[in-house]
Amino acid sequence: MEHLNPAGIGPPPATGVGQEIYALAERLFPICRSITGNGVRATLDVLSQHIELQRHEVPTGTQLFDWTVPKEWNIRSATITGPDGQTVLDFADSNLHVVNYSLPFKGILPLAELRPHIHTLPEQPQLIPYRTSYYAPTWGFCAAHVRVADLPDGFYRVEIDAELEDGTLTYGEYLHRGQSEREFLLSAHICHPSLANDNCSGLALLAMLARSLKARKTRYSYRFLFAPGTIGALAWLSRNEDRTCLIDHGLVLSCVGDSGDPAYKRSRRGDAFIDRAMSHVLGRRAGAKLMDFSPYGYDERQYCSPGFNLPVGMFQRSVHGTFPEYHTSADNLDFIRPEHLEDSFRILMEVIDIVEEDWTPLNRLPKGEPQLGKRGLYAAVGGQKSSGATSMSLLWVLNLADGQHSLLAMAERSNLPFKELAAAAKLLLEHELLVAL
Amino acid sequence: MEHLNPAGIGPPPATGVGQEIYALAERLFPICRSITGNGVRATLDVLSQHIELQRHEVPTGTQLFDWTVPKEWNIRSATITGPDGQTVLDFADSNLHVVNYSLPFKGILPLAELRPHIHTLPEQPQLIPYRTSYYAPTWGFCAAHVRVADLPDGFYRVEIDAELEDGTLTYGEYLHRGQSEREFLLSAHICHPSLANDNCSGLALLAMLARSLKARKTRYSYRFLFAPGTIGALAWLSRNEDRTCLIDHGLVLSCVGDSGDPAYKRSRRGDAFIDRAMSHVLGRRAGAKLMDFSPYGYDERQYCSPGFNLPVGMFQRSVHGTFPEYHTSADNLDFIRPEHLEDSFRILMEVIDIVEEDWTPLNRLPKGEPQLGKRGLYAAVGGQKSSGATSMSLLWVLNLADGQHSLLAMAERSNLPFKELAAAAKLLLEHELLVAL
Amino acid sequence: MEHLNPAGIGPPPATGVGQEIYALAERLFPICRSITGNGVRATLDVLSQHIELQRHEVPTGTQLFDWTVPKEWNIRSATITGPDGQTVLDFADSNLHVVNYSLPFKGILPLAELRPHIHTLPEQPQLIPYRTSYYAPTWGFCAAHVRVADLPDGFYRVEIDAELEDGTLTYGEYLHRGQSEREFLLSAHICHPSLANDNCSGLALLAMLARSLKARKTRYSYRFLFAPGTIGALAWLSRNEDRTCLIDHGLVLSCVGDSGDPAYKRSRRGDAFIDRAMSHVLGRRAGAKLMDFSPYGYDERQYCSPGFNLPVGMFQRSVHGTFPEYHTSADNLDFIRPEHLEDSFRILMEVIDIVEEDWTPLNRLPKGEPQLGKRGLYAAVGGQKSSGATSMSLLWVLNLADGQHSLLAMAERSNLPFKELAAAAKLLLEHELLVAL
Repeated sequence: MEHLNPAGIGPPPATGVGQEIYALAERLFPICRSITGNGVRATLDVLSQHIELQRHEVPTGTQLFDWTVPKEWNIRSATITGPDGQTVLDFADSNLHVVNYSLPFKGILPLAELRPHIHTLPEQPQLIPYRTSYYAPTWGFCAAHVRVADLPDGFYRVEIDAELEDGTLTYGEYLHRGQSEREFLLSAHICHPSLANDNCSGLALLAMLARSLKARKTRYSYRFLFAPGTIGALAWLSRNEDRTCLIDHGLVLSCVGDSGDPAYKRSRRGDAFIDRAMSHVLGRRAGAKLMDFSPYGYDERQYCSPGFNLPVGMFQRSVHGTFPEYHTSADNLDFIRPEHLEDSFRILMEVIDIVEEDWTPLNRLPKGEPQLGKRGLYAAVGGQKSSGATSMSLLWVLNLADGQHSLLAMAERSNLPFKELAAAAKLLLEHELLVAL
Repeated sequence: MEHLNPAGIGPPPATGVGQEIYALAERLFPICRSITGNGVRATLDVLSQHIELQRHEVPTGTQLFDWTVPKEWNIRSATITGPDGQTVLDFADSNLHVVNYSLPFKGILPLAELRPHIHTLPEQPQLIPYRTSYYAPTWGFCAAHVRVADLPDGFYRVEIDAELEDGTLTYGEYLHRGQSEREFLLSAHICHPSLANDNCSGLALLAMLARSLKARKTRYSYRFLFAPGTIGALAWLSRNEDRTCLIDHGLVLSCVGDSGDPAYKRSRRGDAFIDRAMSHVLGRRAGAKLMDFSPYGYDERQYCSPGFNLPVGMFQRSVHGTFPEYHTSADNLDFIRPEHLEDSFRILMEVIDIVEEDWTPLNRLPKGEPQLGKRGLYAAVGGQKSSGATSMSLLWVLNLADGQHSLLAMAERSNLPFKELAAAAKLLLEHELLVAL
Repeated sequence: MEHLNPAGIGPPPATGVGQEIYALAERLFPICRSITGNGVRATLDVLSQHIELQRHEVPTGTQLFDWTVPKEWNIRSATITGPDGQTVLDFADSNLHVVNYSLPFKGILPLAELRPHIHTLPEQPQLIPYRTSYYAPTWGFCAAHVRVADLPDGFYRVEIDAELEDGTLTYGEYLHRGQSEREFLLSAHICHPSLANDNCSGLALLAMLARSLKARKTRYSYRFLFAPGTIGALAWLSRNEDRTCLIDHGLVLSCVGDSGDPAYKRSRRGDAFIDRAMSHVLGRRAGAKLMDFSPYGYDERQYCSPGFNLPVGMFQRSVHGTFPEYHTSADNLDFIRPEHLEDSFRILMEVIDIVEEDWTPLNRLPKGEPQLGKRGLYAAVGGQKSSGATSMSLLWVLNLADGQHSLLAMAERSNLPFKELAAAAKLLLEHELLVAL
């Protein structure tokens, strides 16, 4: 357990939230998702048991900026049968076995012709790779290298019972309404099949976060988006182009359940409030990674495209593409743990607390320090070696309450935790030493 | 001896100034000071033998922003006598033995009732702690832990012959008038009793600095303030609120006599001229510490409160609160040394030199380098491996004399000592290669 | 060989350019140059075999800002003959043997009177120092310390057959005209005699660079200046004062042939385009040095004087004054190597490529990413572990093509090589995903 950051200022989440997120990820894991199709709908069905999702269906052929909604893909089964009649690969064993968006195919081929259609990882011979072919029509399988390395020559029967037909692209959306119309966008990709960290973890965490906020009266509105990667984000942006100006903060979540240290990639702006808040929270943790924006990754690529340039960063634990389990069958339910999911959950709650609780105080007695002692706000007997953290928080808030510093700016300058400063400011406000700007 | 910085551009201080400062500190050490009372006046009497102090008396009850001048405290004697008639503690042995601002008290108590009124430092059992209780009425003693740890049960006679009556708060002020009304404020707290570094050292150094400036015709006016901590600074600010806009530079001094490396805490502004000048002087010394402002410490807390935000930093050697002798009887006359006091003195003189000697030159021949050789300003035979420091200073001044750089800015950019650049600029001015802006 | 940077985007230089530069430096080495005289003219004669130099003659007595063109110096021979009639030193052996600009002299002196006129390097006793005396009339010799340390007493015959007469100062200039009148100034000092690195290397490299640009249609005009140090640069500045506003980029070259890592000293501005371009190129090489401007060095001192403040930096390998061979007879043809000259050449070509190829693209489809796959610009099968460098370049260019970033700014932010981004931008422009601003 590495909960270095206990719960924030808001109500602490129910104990065992890590277990709950894990249990939900477990239910999502077996479903074969893709960027369209019934797997996405089944996933949204499960998530809907926790939050009231609004479901959107976008028809095949719809123009989304430079993109077009593709045909809908659904798969029932897929097998390769060997010359001896034995099953070589079966989609029923792992939905990674078929290239995602593979064309349907039925035929008997000599091994030499089949080989180019089977993707393996020779350097990780036990693992099935995850491959997709959304926009380049082809058919194919993925397999552990050891499973297919020594196949005997002969003719193989291949059957991929899939459909690629006009249909719809599906995404889910949940809006927690706060006092303001201004929004915090939280987005997770829903298109990957049986990969636990990438992104059953993100989907489950997001759902539990939404559930947890439900009971809370918030200042901001929180929009939760469960959409297929790239095309789903573009669908939402395309349909909500006029509303994007309401987004004050945003986070893309993926790979939030592994044992790696938490990592944050800044928005393209680099100094947005969300960038500063995440830097404050993670900057206080040894091992946490803070990275500048780059245009490769998840849907921050779309949110941060120059025509939108939204203040959306990306939160994850192990950085995608850098861990050996990434995009393989080793990204399974053993790879994510309740404690890491809970840690990620608490980090996000702490950031939400900052977004919710930040304000700009003005010192009503700015000339000299107010006499804290006569208000019971100061250790009564002076001369001790050091002022406690609380006294320091009080002094920092009073000193910086010139109307130019919000609490987050005070936290950045003082290097004290935001929550300590927020508590100090609350106390000083109650004693009428501050007014809110 | 660690005089890495010999005297500045101005007249070098008299040899032995460290000895003089130490001798003055020795005289101040035995006096029992507090934030009010005769100890402050006695201290000002001693200082007045060196500088013409103006003395201010502020009546009890006077409102100073959020604070009120308290009753005046004076103490004649205090003792604890044991069941056997032996003296356990006597104020006459150390003025730290009584909690500063202790209420008068006379009575006979069982040990159990006396105990909570005796403060000790169990982790530094040989040392008497320094404790105050200015604004929370109580009575008490301070003692070495070993002295009182094993007191026998029985009844103890306690007598604190002190007065807490309407009176005045006293502070001293000395103004060295320069050509300009604009001011350099130098301030030291006068309220601590027998603590040598904190702040007999600061009081003595400030007095000697004032004496030393007396003979010097300065550009700035220099205001020296000897005032009780917090309430004294507030008294001055309150009575001079309209004049604070004249303060261009300021330093609070405390703990300037110990063997620690010199340290400077920046003003709240962080980039005031005094911050840059101190950074330049200390930045050239290994071990010296440069710290950002924080609202805990000495009277920079008041000068840098948001309603004033004056360009006042704080100079000390070992950082208060971090050395074991701090606020104990170990902060005695052995803890400070003439050579460290002299080093502190020289640092301040060097900073005063920068304040006095800074100016913005304009190159009269800005196109190409002027021919220094024909003016005798350059080594006559070229081709040597390197230009000497003086030549470099000449070249830097000429190159940066575009009207945008004062000498201090040139020192910052060139990383050459201010005094070398000032000497070079003087030479170039004499040769009519510069004009003053 | 340490060609870490292969050729830039432009046409790669002819193979063997390092050999060609070296061969040219070999031809320049034996000539006795000074700030005036026939040695400069002979040097320009050799350079003119490669580029069409315009030659300028500036008469003695011409005022150049604060300077005056001195009398022209020419030397035919110089010897010291010992009491025994043996030749002690002969200018014919090394043109370093005579102080550059030595007055003519003929006489017989006792050793004690001769000694002050012989300069040696006692700490490098085998080497002849290089000394000049342009503006302080004197005569003198330079010798290896071992050669003259044990001279016997007696009378020595000294003969310096030199002339210091009214004449002219000579410099050479070559302009490669580009589409624009705006200029890139490249300047090398021509005044040093037999010193290979300082600056036969710079003169030869500059000539070959000029020759290499001749065949290239460039955007900028390139001005190549071969002028004596200080006085030559001032001559050019004085005669072209009105044209200096056309200089957008500039480099002074010296000591570009030794085995040291490449080094760049920024212009006085510090953030000029040339500073950024050189930082980008050298910042990607381990060992390369990037230094802030200082007003000591070569003719950047004049170009960066405050009245001009041109965007001119300085490129060299081992930093002048820091290597033991500097300004001695050890700076000979063994000290420079073709491979280092070629490396320097390629670095300059890479910078010229950046100057030539930089532009500011605007993304025509800024909302979301354009679909690269349908244009054949993206790996067809998704899900691989990492996007290749080319894909990253495409994504970075698209993401930053908001009209605020030129390609160099993109390279700085993405930390990708300029040439990769330029290639990506070219591809995207061809696919009509960008327009040029």
